Amino acid sequence: MNVELPPGVTAEDELRQRLPAVHAQSDLPDKVTIYEVGARDGLQAEKLSVPTTAKIDFIVDLVGAGLPVVEATSFVSPKWVPQLADAADVLAGLGPDLSRHPVLVPNMRGLERALASNAAALAVFVSATETFARRNLNMSLLQAVDAALEVTEAARSEGLSVRGYVSMCFGDPWEGQVKLRQVSEVSKALIDAGCYQVSLGDTIGVGTAGHVAALLRDHEAIGIDLDQLALHFHDTYGQALANVHAGLQAGVTCFDASAGGIGGCPFAGTATGNLATEDLLWMLTGLGIETGVDLKAVWSAGSKMTALLGRPSPSRVAQALTP
Amino acid sequence: MNVELPPGVTAEDELRQRLPAVHAQSDLPDKVTIYEVGARDGLQAEKLSVPTTAKIDFIVDLVGAGLPVVEATSFVSPKWVPQLADAADVLAGLGPDLSRHPVLVPNMRGLERALASNAAALAVFVSATETFARRNLNMSLLQAVDAALEVTEAARSEGLSVRGYVSMCFGDPWEGQVKLRQVSEVSKALIDAGCYQVSLGDTIGVGTAGHVAALLRDHEAIGIDLDQLALHFHDTYGQALANVHAGLQAGVTCFDASAGGIGGCPFAGTATGNLATEDLLWMLTGLGIETGVDLKAVWSAGSKMTALLGRPSPSRVAQALTP
Repeated sequence: MNVELPPGVTAEDELRQRLPAVHAQSDLPDKVTIYEVGARDGLQAEKLSVPTTAKIDFIVDLVGAGLPVVEATSFVSPKWVPQLADAADVLAGLGPDLSRHPVLVPNMRGLERALASNAAALAVFVSATETFARRNLNMSLLQAVDAALEVTEAARSEGLSVRGYVSMCFGDPWEGQVKLRQVSEVSKALIDAGCYQVSLGDTIGVGTAGHVAALLRDHEAIGIDLDQLALHFHDTYGQALANVHAGLQAGVTCFDASAGGIGGCPFAGTATGNLATEDLLWMLTGLGIETGVDLKAVWSAGSKMTALLGRPSPSRVAQALTP
Repeated sequence: MNVELPPGVTAEDELRQRLPAVHAQSDLPDKVTIYEVGARDGLQAEKLSVPTTAKIDFIVDLVGAGLPVVEATSFVSPKWVPQLADAADVLAGLGPDLSRHPVLVPNMRGLERALASNAAALAVFVSATETFARRNLNMSLLQAVDAALEVTEAARSEGLSVRGYVSMCFGDPWEGQVKLRQVSEVSKALIDAGCYQVSLGDTIGVGTAGHVAALLRDHEAIGIDLDQLALHFHDTYGQALANVHAGLQAGVTCFDASAGGIGGCPFAGTATGNLATEDLLWMLTGLGIETGVDLKAVWSAGSKMTALLGRPSPSRVAQALTP
């Protein structure tokens, strides 16, 4: 793997010298899957239009870094998310095997476009809260769940794998606190419809470690296995890695993260701040948990994208390693 | 308590709406002591000279926020740390009861100055590594430990309480990895000499949660109780709160933190980045752990100081709450 480092970057031997000491814990998983969302969740809210070739390069670099799944784009309406209007071109640039590049699809129209672009893996999303569904999708919560289930079933019948995202699992900017069972029932509906995994998102980043443990226990209480769940944290209030730690202890083995921490400005008080893949990797490295992912290569890919976006990476690791 | 909020700050009811849901965990402590280090550890490396009155106001605000211990300053040589050359004036402005305002003292000369300023509580420090002792103090590790023990014993005989800091516990920028037993033996020497508590510092911020658990177990293995220990994390690689989580689970009940995350620039790859008190409080609030500290008041105090220093706070919570 030939990795181009950002200008002035710490030499490789110095990086190795700095890496955390490994102290494996017998009560944690041996292996974890990092589900990379930088190219989709990270870029979707960016105002600066990123060239399609830069997106493809970013995804290819992340695959080269060893990430097993790199979500590629979203077939939402270009009116809503102009940044991802080039979804078909991104997939064309990545093909022909798109099995490790899921695409987000909001509705049946998006599914048609995804199928026409040879997508092999989908993700659908739904909010755990009424207000968010109404504001974001202009539907009731039940209508939004039904729409996601319809897409899931149609995609499954075409032989595609489908992942579900549930947003606002730990708090809602309008409703405040969100009941555990309200979330786990949405998860169960997605799993029952054929989603192989549901990713529980702390979209506004307010949740803490005890909440993670409680929410996972509630999912187990209604018959959901932890290997059907992933966790998706935002570092808005600095809680993401403590929450991952709680998730690992509960037995979760899949975590979403965004290379370079891409996904909004860390200095804005908004629902932004994806957990940086680099920061997650630092912790997993220290815990002796295998991911198959090369930290330096992710850092390099993330640094190239944040440089293109014209701002420093919010990743603490990227900041510490970049002189 | 009359708290002056930073300009344009979120209204109080909105802050309350945003606070994390409380999910207490039966395996965690009910109460935790936050040992506030912003005025000393936070400011010591600042190049911009902070007026003495602003330091005193900062400390008084932090006491008003409910912090039980606010380390005030350091009687190091003004040649080494010009920022803290006003140590005597800071104490004079805080007196007469200085029991909740420990001062850092590097040697017998510093102890004399601290005693002349009516200090009631001291902190001494020593590195866990040879190279850091030689570079920072121009002594061997054994000489540095002996010097700290000499100060500790002299201060104890004057009736002062003494806390010990051990730095480089999780890694050293020159030596790389640091053996657990090397750290715990330094801690034991400080406790045997009369320190009521030893704070284990991850000065370069590289450690991860499993390392925390292992280091605490090693301290217990040589007869140190966890209530004799505190943990002092830097967020350089984003690990601070995950490490606090591991410390809480082991049973530690005292954590160092710095209001506003003061203690160096988050965009510099140096041994900086104190855990922000605000970020720690967010997690402890969500875990239902009592601290007696008001988040809004700490945020206000930290915001005033970071505004004076002319840069945004590296605290994620402060960033998220400040529009």
